[in-house]
Amino acid sequence: MEKYQPKPNFDDIISAYERIKGFIHKTPVLTSKTFDGMTGSQLYFKCENFQKAGAFKFRGATNAVLALSDAEAKMGVITHSSGNHAGALSLAASLRKIPAFIVVPKNATGVKKDAVRGYGGKIIECQPTLDSREKTAEQVRKETGAILIHPYNNYKIIAGAGTTTLELLHDINDLEVILAPVGGGGLLSGTAIAARGSKNKIKVYGCEPQNANDAYLSFAAGEIIPVTNPDTVADGLRTSLGDKTFPIISKLVDDIFLVPEHEIVSAMKLLWERMKIIVEPSAVVPFAVVLQNRKELRKKKIGIILSGGNVDLSRLPFMPA
Amino acid sequence: MEKYQPKPNFDDIISAYERIKGFIHKTPVLTSKTFDGMTGSQLYFKCENFQKAGAFKFRGATNAVLALSDAEAKMGVITHSSGNHAGALSLAASLRKIPAFIVVPKNATGVKKDAVRGYGGKIIECQPTLDSREKTAEQVRKETGAILIHPYNNYKIIAGAGTTTLELLHDINDLEVILAPVGGGGLLSGTAIAARGSKNKIKVYGCEPQNANDAYLSFAAGEIIPVTNPDTVADGLRTSLGDKTFPIISKLVDDIFLVPEHEIVSAMKLLWERMKIIVEPSAVVPFAVVLQNRKELRKKKIGIILSGGNVDLSRLPFMPA
Repeated sequence: MEKYQPKPNFDDIISAYERIKGFIHKTPVLTSKTFDGMTGSQLYFKCENFQKAGAFKFRGATNAVLALSDAEAKMGVITHSSGNHAGALSLAASLRKIPAFIVVPKNATGVKKDAVRGYGGKIIECQPTLDSREKTAEQVRKETGAILIHPYNNYKIIAGAGTTTLELLHDINDLEVILAPVGGGGLLSGTAIAARGSKNKIKVYGCEPQNANDAYLSFAAGEIIPVTNPDTVADGLRTSLGDKTFPIISKLVDDIFLVPEHEIVSAMKLLWERMKIIVEPSAVVPFAVVLQNRKELRKKKIGIILSGGNVDLSRLPFMPA
Repeated sequence: MEKYQPKPNFDDIISAYERIKGFIHKTPVLTSKTFDGMTGSQLYFKCENFQKAGAFKFRGATNAVLALSDAEAKMGVITHSSGNHAGALSLAASLRKIPAFIVVPKNATGVKKDAVRGYGGKIIECQPTLDSREKTAEQVRKETGAILIHPYNNYKIIAGAGTTTLELLHDINDLEVILAPVGGGGLLSGTAIAARGSKNKIKVYGCEPQNANDAYLSFAAGEIIPVTNPDTVADGLRTSLGDKTFPIISKLVDDIFLVPEHEIVSAMKLLWERMKIIVEPSAVVPFAVVLQNRKELRKKKIGIILSGGNVDLSRLPFMPA
């Protein structure tokens, strides 16, 4: 039986790392005796909340932007996103001094638009529907000639995301398990491909909000089952798997675990209080899974991808209403 | 003219470090290109928010507890504090498996009492006045035979606090300026003594809330001018200088800078947003001073002591009311 060959493959992640390593932060891996004591496992937190632009998304965006030919790059890049990919792509584009056009729903918060503008991105507003986002992006793409860089359904983005695990395994080379959050699946796909490149057999689990359980359902069904407008505090995980991420996750990921909303919020508060670092709700979902005390994770050496730290500090979920 | 010899002196800080180094975290020094760009200085943040018990206070408490003879230690230690010293002393006492009696005002928040209990301290409640705190502590001291460990007006506490700067200068040996917050003056005293032990001439400035300006007034007047019940968000800096800290600060500190409340809150929000770390209001006062763009600090290589990270996450000062 032929071994499944994902696209991108492990070598693509190595190439991505060579391309971006001079431009990204090599983020630290933190540990906590308190949490190890609470869980009975050994936890290694890979802190992408300290990454440039505040999230792992900068890795993929930088990989995608730097991989463009000069002819492709000169008209700029475009995406539709109201989240971390928008800021990351804006900052990555600034590395090549090319424009970044960011299609953003009218109702996106000022904080997020400010971040994009702060990194030099150009905001184009659209209606707050997927249809309007895609149509507006397509229109701007035609007008400007900019290259569309999808937030996750893109091989360069997946390979860039996978460099997070490459670094993590360089620092801690005997992990038994890696946990990553799953929204559109770019990070989880890259994580699984990178883990498979290690000499050890590492289990890779996706961690998803119960209220946005499309990856869980798709994984079980063997086909993409999207969710629409899921209601979760983990705003980075509201997207559904794409046709490039689903096959990778389906083949290389060991399981998908779900977390209810209140567990995400309490895990976030606990992590802030004890580790004294700021992570966003999406980033804390794997830690919430560890706190569920699942048998698959007991007494294991576990890598946890803390995917980002961009939160609106005036609207924190654990504040009294 | 004889050179002023502080008590404790530099050698006492070295001794303190030898005593405590196996028990404390060697905390990281973080930098931020964003903040360097904003201020035109090179900033080195010494992250005592990552220290055990969440603040530099654990250094002094550990030094004081470990320096006790077995005969002194066996009856335990006692202090009156509703802040970081209470938790730090409780945790330090647990290292020697001796009791820590913590006199706490009745109106202290549940979060703070929980922290003390979590570290194994025994809480004794008193009325929320300085008089009641001191009388209650004296009564418990007589009943138990426990040794009083004052939060700052204590040579072992000052020497322990000074080890923060010892570590900072070990990592960054060419600092031109060090900034520390000042409340009771233990940290600032230790910082100044440690800085003076360096071969370079390092300027040391104390940073104080304008609403709790006793160190500023005392420094100018040449005598202790206490404040009573100052109203500041920087809850760790509401105390006034003591007779052991004032002479050191008076002789060895270059100046005291003041910060109004709104600048403390906005500096805290900025630091959380950009560095993705949690620091308490008291800890952010020196960074707020740097943001004032004072001529003494321009284009300088500056060490900033981020003194602690213990905040009540349900009552953040930059949340809407």
